[in-house]
Amino acid sequence: MSDHRTPEMHWSRWGNPAEAGPLAESAFALVDAFIGTTDTPAVDAADVRLSEALAPALVSELTAIVGAEFVLTDHETRLHRTRGKSTPDLLKLRRGDGSDSPDAVVRPGSHDEVVALIDWCVRRTVALVPFGGGTSVVGGLAARRDGFAGVISLDLIRFDKLISVDRDSMTVVLEPGLRGPQAEALLAEHGLTIGHFPQSFEYASIGGFAVTRSSGQSSAGYGRFDALVVGLTVATPQGTLELGSSPANAAGPDLREVIMGSEGAFGVVTAVRLRVRPLPAVKVYESWRFDSFVTGHDAMRTLAQSGVLPTVLRLSDENETAINLAKPSEIGAASGADQGGGCLMITGYEGEQAAVDAKRTAVTALLEGLGGTNLGTEGGDAWAAGRFHGPYLRDSLLDVGVLVETLETVTFWSNLDNVYARVKEALTAALGDATLVLCHISHVYETGASLYFTVATKASDDPLARWLAAKAAASDAMVHNGASITHHHAVGQDHKPWLAQEIGPVGVQILRAIKERLDPTGVLNPGVLIP
Amino acid sequence: MSDHRTPEMHWSRWGNPAEAGPLAESAFALVDAFIGTTDTPAVDAADVRLSEALAPALVSELTAIVGAEFVLTDHETRLHRTRGKSTPDLLKLRRGDGSDSPDAVVRPGSHDEVVALIDWCVRRTVALVPFGGGTSVVGGLAARRDGFAGVISLDLIRFDKLISVDRDSMTVVLEPGLRGPQAEALLAEHGLTIGHFPQSFEYASIGGFAVTRSSGQSSAGYGRFDALVVGLTVATPQGTLELGSSPANAAGPDLREVIMGSEGAFGVVTAVRLRVRPLPAVKVYESWRFDSFVTGHDAMRTLAQSGVLPTVLRLSDENETAINLAKPSEIGAASGADQGGGCLMITGYEGEQAAVDAKRTAVTALLEGLGGTNLGTEGGDAWAAGRFHGPYLRDSLLDVGVLVETLETVTFWSNLDNVYARVKEALTAALGDATLVLCHISHVYETGASLYFTVATKASDDPLARWLAAKAAASDAMVHNGASITHHHAVGQDHKPWLAQEIGPVGVQILRAIKERLDPTGVLNPGVLIP
Repeated sequence: MSDHRTPEMHWSRWGNPAEAGPLAESAFALVDAFIGTTDTPAVDAADVRLSEALAPALVSELTAIVGAEFVLTDHETRLHRTRGKSTPDLLKLRRGDGSDSPDAVVRPGSHDEVVALIDWCVRRTVALVPFGGGTSVVGGLAARRDGFAGVISLDLIRFDKLISVDRDSMTVVLEPGLRGPQAEALLAEHGLTIGHFPQSFEYASIGGFAVTRSSGQSSAGYGRFDALVVGLTVATPQGTLELGSSPANAAGPDLREVIMGSEGAFGVVTAVRLRVRPLPAVKVYESWRFDSFVTGHDAMRTLAQSGVLPTVLRLSDENETAINLAKPSEIGAASGADQGGGCLMITGYEGEQAAVDAKRTAVTALLEGLGGTNLGTEGGDAWAAGRFHGPYLRDSLLDVGVLVETLETVTFWSNLDNVYARVKEALTAALGDATLVLCHISHVYETGASLYFTVATKASDDPLARWLAAKAAASDAMVHNGASITHHHAVGQDHKPWLAQEIGPVGVQILRAIKERLDPTGVLNPGVLIP
Repeated sequence: MSDHRTPEMHWSRWGNPAEAGPLAESAFALVDAFIGTTDTPAVDAADVRLSEALAPALVSELTAIVGAEFVLTDHETRLHRTRGKSTPDLLKLRRGDGSDSPDAVVRPGSHDEVVALIDWCVRRTVALVPFGGGTSVVGGLAARRDGFAGVISLDLIRFDKLISVDRDSMTVVLEPGLRGPQAEALLAEHGLTIGHFPQSFEYASIGGFAVTRSSGQSSAGYGRFDALVVGLTVATPQGTLELGSSPANAAGPDLREVIMGSEGAFGVVTAVRLRVRPLPAVKVYESWRFDSFVTGHDAMRTLAQSGVLPTVLRLSDENETAINLAKPSEIGAASGADQGGGCLMITGYEGEQAAVDAKRTAVTALLEGLGGTNLGTEGGDAWAAGRFHGPYLRDSLLDVGVLVETLETVTFWSNLDNVYARVKEALTAALGDATLVLCHISHVYETGASLYFTVATKASDDPLARWLAAKAAASDAMVHNGASITHHHAVGQDHKPWLAQEIGPVGVQILRAIKERLDPTGVLNPGVLIP
């Protein structure tokens, strides 16, 4: 296995357990005043009720495939493979509900072992949940149990190698279990980068990025992850699928685009061929102030439609900007806007010095002409320093009885203000007073943009029910207003009802047809994606 | 119907019948010397043997759906909807074989009429071939007849409207029957352009571009057609599919990418939402000389991987360059290279003056550093003037017994020289001496490029058999060497066996599963695409 291993994530919190801690005093005072706090600790790890461990006879059969060292049924290992990291996932674990745990964690070491495990699951009618980084926030790791003799977590942690580098074509082949930092470290030895930095970067995996259509904070410069994937190897119950003869072609439907977004329901990705770029020599991050969210997103639209995009482009609405200003070091975003309200924009440039200079000059000229005030690099650097830290704050807030969750969507520019207003309305109506709804845009296209909402409210007696109602209202608002149910969080169990509305009954039939052909016994991540 | 109608294409030749004519004397002398000529006229249109016209009882039922004016069974109309424009298609028609003709040509005027026609075809087990521009060169318009009570051509010629313009999002909704020039004329009234100019531009249709994953001569600047499509409305036997909630999302597999490339086998596209750009204020085309094909394509690779691409970027190999120099006005490509051999590159820039100047300066600096010699705008203008004229020359050559055809592929940069050599070898081995094999690159990516071959050889007694053997050898060379069977010509009937090798048995199962679910009676363009 390679170095650069990320520490195992905390069982009931985001991230590195060493970084878990209470809310800073200043943040606590702010939250206490606006929302109110209640000490709300999690149960002990040992007290979480898991499923029954897999029967010894079945464990023996798995051992014959991958070796005894790689079939685990102990409480701790299974607990660490239970669900993903949505707030509902954490709320359930914090109160001791581990009912979606796998009955065993199996760690294959090769494509052939994955094929053998799939065949075994089909024969034994055991559900199989592929596990990459475990960062799903849409219920992608909570397989249906009904009708199955058990559930195993197919942990891809041993798939952690850089298989090959093609410098002429600027592509690499990576194994799917590589976490973001591992993959970047292996590529840095060759002077290369993927350039994919979602907030989940420190834990999420290459395979997970592909099968969920992840999008990173540098998507304006490097592209969405699905735009970086040029080839895929996929183990399915029907055999192995090798896709990616070429950068692009006209050889029928693009089947890579069927596997991307398939969330383990069609097969297990065992290798990913990616487009890569040279490691940037220079990185510059700046902040800007705009009078309003509308002025700011109009400026983003102009940049996107002019083909003059920085590597990072992000705009906070008035609420998110105000919160960032109040406690920048706690909220993990940028300070530096002046005290006149308005909206904070982050622009980032990565590449060779000359290219960075040229792009920065062009973007600066455009933004100044569109109402932006350049605030220098301090706010940009603060954003870059805290870019992966947001999720830690959520856990500290859950500890004091404050419910925090995020949701996101994407639509065309002409529909953006409408969707922004309708989703905010829906959340506020569902959650009542003393609810904070923040929003930012972090992914832009020529034709539209994403909207990413952060919600904070009192947990109350049943925070799970409270959140599910708000989430349903927001999801209804998205789909009824013609936006997508998800820009980059994928579908899982949680978005499935709205996916059905988004793609319609014929779209659902296409997904079901593929599922039933590739996985007729339905053992692959049952319950996710397919309505 | 809108203005800007393209004249009906010649029944046995490419393009506008008014432009058909004999080979120029100078070209004739050249061809006669190298390959040899034989007068080889086509039969008269009236002598082409077509299928039986659809039975009157069935015609009556169709009339009830679309009206009598729009159900045609006369010889001329059916002849004009017989097959596409590959050389094999033309060879068959020229010798009087119209066996793939539709039994009736039906011209619906609305989505609902298309739905009704599909339902009728399912009930009557009549095969339905969607017809856009009729420019297929892969057998996409030659449906299988066995097992069907007849074959109708679903002619989309009345789908010729610009439905809506969304200026904020820079998208438009177009009907699928619009030919290239019609669509561009409608958009020009709004100051917009699609920027999609394949060689077939003057006849090919918006719907055809989408379902075949077309790529145009300006793809370096505007993108492949599949990258321009943001939404699709599709009539299928299971109902209507509406796709495209957003520019991009994570809502499962991208089903737009399933319909693109589906060639009428999954449904009939009745509306296409496209990303558009401002009409360019300035267009500049230049030519360059490189010492060799390798030096030239290495320079292209550097441009693509530096993100410094002109709007048009094209490189002829040594053979194609030499032919262009010999008879530039006849061959339809550029003159202007000096007399020292080498390879001709075309660079084109379209946009606002300042952006064109900046891009041209950057490209010029890079190309000069990579061994290029700038030859000025004369050769570029000659290329632009003749860019849609190549296919007319093929007909003039067929008239004198010279077999001409093109084929194309795409692969990664590291495999480009290998594929180039293997395909040339295969063609030369199959066709023998006195065969010209020319090649150019006209589409580049960061990770690879297309290769487009033009072949000219003596027709001999059985040119069809001669070509099919050469085509099979070239196709084997592509797929065995890891390249795609097609970069932008699609699959049709002709590439189907190699598609199966390219996507493998599991890939084939995915296509079959979708086909069987959406079109269980198999009436939609039977025989194309699905292996």
